[in-house]
Amino acid sequence: MAAQMTPDEKYTLITRGLQEVLGGDQIKAILEANERPLKLYWGTAPTGRPHCGYFVPMVKLAEFLRADVEVTVLLADIHAFLDNLKAPIELVKHRVEFYSRVVRTMLESLGVSTEKLRFVTGSSYQLTPEYSMDTYRLAAHVTEHDAKKAGAEVVKQVDSALLSGLLYPGMQALDEEYLGCDAQFGGVDQRKIFTFAEKYMPTLGYKKRAHLMNPMVPGLAGGKMSSSDPNSKIDVLDDAKTVKKKIGAAFCAPGEVEGNGVLAFVKNVLFPVYALRSQSSGESQEGFYINRPEQYGGPISFRTYEALEEAYASQSLTPMDLKSGVTDEINKLLKPIQEFYVADKEWQEIAERAYPVEGGKAKKEKKKKDKGSRYPGGGAEMKVEQTEEEKKEVGGSVEEAMGQLKVGQQ
Amino acid sequence: MAAQMTPDEKYTLITRGLQEVLGGDQIKAILEANERPLKLYWGTAPTGRPHCGYFVPMVKLAEFLRADVEVTVLLADIHAFLDNLKAPIELVKHRVEFYSRVVRTMLESLGVSTEKLRFVTGSSYQLTPEYSMDTYRLAAHVTEHDAKKAGAEVVKQVDSALLSGLLYPGMQALDEEYLGCDAQFGGVDQRKIFTFAEKYMPTLGYKKRAHLMNPMVPGLAGGKMSSSDPNSKIDVLDDAKTVKKKIGAAFCAPGEVEGNGVLAFVKNVLFPVYALRSQSSGESQEGFYINRPEQYGGPISFRTYEALEEAYASQSLTPMDLKSGVTDEINKLLKPIQEFYVADKEWQEIAERAYPVEGGKAKKEKKKKDKGSRYPGGGAEMKVEQTEEEKKEVGGSVEEAMGQLKVGQQ
Repeated sequence: MAAQMTPDEKYTLITRGLQEVLGGDQIKAILEANERPLKLYWGTAPTGRPHCGYFVPMVKLAEFLRADVEVTVLLADIHAFLDNLKAPIELVKHRVEFYSRVVRTMLESLGVSTEKLRFVTGSSYQLTPEYSMDTYRLAAHVTEHDAKKAGAEVVKQVDSALLSGLLYPGMQALDEEYLGCDAQFGGVDQRKIFTFAEKYMPTLGYKKRAHLMNPMVPGLAGGKMSSSDPNSKIDVLDDAKTVKKKIGAAFCAPGEVEGNGVLAFVKNVLFPVYALRSQSSGESQEGFYINRPEQYGGPISFRTYEALEEAYASQSLTPMDLKSGVTDEINKLLKPIQEFYVADKEWQEIAERAYPVEGGKAKKEKKKKDKGSRYPGGGAEMKVEQTEEEKKEVGGSVEEAMGQLKVGQQ
Repeated sequence: MAAQMTPDEKYTLITRGLQEVLGGDQIKAILEANERPLKLYWGTAPTGRPHCGYFVPMVKLAEFLRADVEVTVLLADIHAFLDNLKAPIELVKHRVEFYSRVVRTMLESLGVSTEKLRFVTGSSYQLTPEYSMDTYRLAAHVTEHDAKKAGAEVVKQVDSALLSGLLYPGMQALDEEYLGCDAQFGGVDQRKIFTFAEKYMPTLGYKKRAHLMNPMVPGLAGGKMSSSDPNSKIDVLDDAKTVKKKIGAAFCAPGEVEGNGVLAFVKNVLFPVYALRSQSSGESQEGFYINRPEQYGGPISFRTYEALEEAYASQSLTPMDLKSGVTDEINKLLKPIQEFYVADKEWQEIAERAYPVEGGKAKKEKKKKDKGSRYPGGGAEMKVEQTEEEKKEVGGSVEEAMGQLKVGQQ
């Protein structure tokens, strides 16, 4: 199936649902030449626990893989650390391991082969002499103003800005060269970082890459009120009962489509997944199915998102029924991930080290609203909170820091 | 002689003539313990051609060496590049070689042994994974505000500040750890960078170093009017006739002591040199000698700077006579350096590559007033000018850049 896709079909699948594409012609040219696969990278800073919002970029990665794209997932450990110490250095190595397992199993749960998926840890190449020299070369060209502007929507903005936040965009640009990619994918919140890369890479003699941007998708929990509540985030390891409870509590006003995180999930995750399945099996899919009780009209399916949205907008479909359908689908997506987790003793140990639990319960989440990090297409659900304990000073020796990053390993 | 110095005598010689000492107690403790030599570093960014203003820090290095201090000269090639591209990357490797020869021969001309003098090129360790990781660790703690403030007097201030200038102070701090030193020496213009280092090194788990600061010494050429004239700078390779002409043209108002670069040179270079010689030979020196023509009163000597200053202030000594004495002394200091140069074919080739001459004459100097660089105790004479040609873009590959820096070599 994928092998039979034309360059046009590949391009269509690669760009499906994106809000913006910069450098589309470069991508088309590579697809049409058909001499080698298109190479693309997506970076994620391993900070807080990954949650269901990650399905949004995962669906795009699944589509890229289906379109024969060589996908590199950058586990940006140094970025995690640079972004206002979101990931404490002593935890980040374990979070790298945790994230790589989550990304792989999420993609497998979406039914795509992860054979051509490559994971690279940032510190494995971002501390080499070549990369460091390029960081300095770039620093001799980039103004403070440009660096600040580039990071404004991604790097946490604090009263007294740290130098780390100014280095962040340059490194994300250099990663394009060092990962040997043709294109970078991210949420549209990365736009300024992407145009920064397009501006400065040629200054160093490197080619300007294409940039693919996902729309920002509202979190499953909906409105802002609940986004600071950690319970509103559905962890990929949450059991079926917890998922049901959390979605039950999600903000989802009757007939309201705009900003509706539950609908957005169906649009940006479920329907694309159905399309991938249909393409894979060659059979058309049933669409979004709700096992509605008989007294409320019985089971119902929607073949298109538009049909679902219309039914919801006209209030012929209630929030409760929508939530019931989404709960079932999310639990179906999470089930294989959780089976991998249960079977993988090492992963369980990594989880304990990556997100240590104090006195029998997880560290208290900070209530303060936070900027997002490097999670494309996320929205409120994608935001990462940081505990006060995590914000401590980074003392100790550089040897400790290097050991904690597992430098050189991938 | 040096071997017989007491800790107190060493401390007195180490701190002689300094404007400010931070951490003097640390230095005293090491001298009194007498278990190992005191280790000190002085950094110089190999940018413009070294001139006679360099004798000011050289005299201090000579005194350090005489007091059994282990002196490291950091040839800060990456800093040279970071400071607004003062040294173009394709020239900086040659300038490192040029500077190391100038520093060594200047010290030898001052009559001190350079056996315990160590030269280290910045790029030999500033691109290692450990150093780079420390740069990031530091960046996660240093605010933009602090970095900017630290560099305000040293890094060239331009309308649109570059990131490189913000990285500069942090690297200069890390150098203290990576060069394994107890103290850093520099001009008092480095004060903010030094206190920055004292503030942030402990944050990374490194010890706070002592800081020794030379006063800012007016350039030989004197007033501001002539400081932008490249002819006013006496190159260490200028022949006797050129030296005479340049000093003859120097601004030196009769009876005026304040801001008098010619007098300042006698005070900060010549008298300390006489003291070193006297200490070395065990014989008292004649002092500053002027071979004044008989019709103006005949030869005259000053045993102390104070006596000379008094004679000049009261106008019993004319500018012409003062200049004549200084010209002779500078030519005596430069003679052995120039003999080394003439005998060293490699140095001559390095000179051609480090400071290329276009169409038979050196590139035209830019007239614009410039901030100083990392030359302690300099003043106007120490300022480095940059040609427009040198300010070009740094394209090309990182391989080229790395090759140009001679990374890993010292």
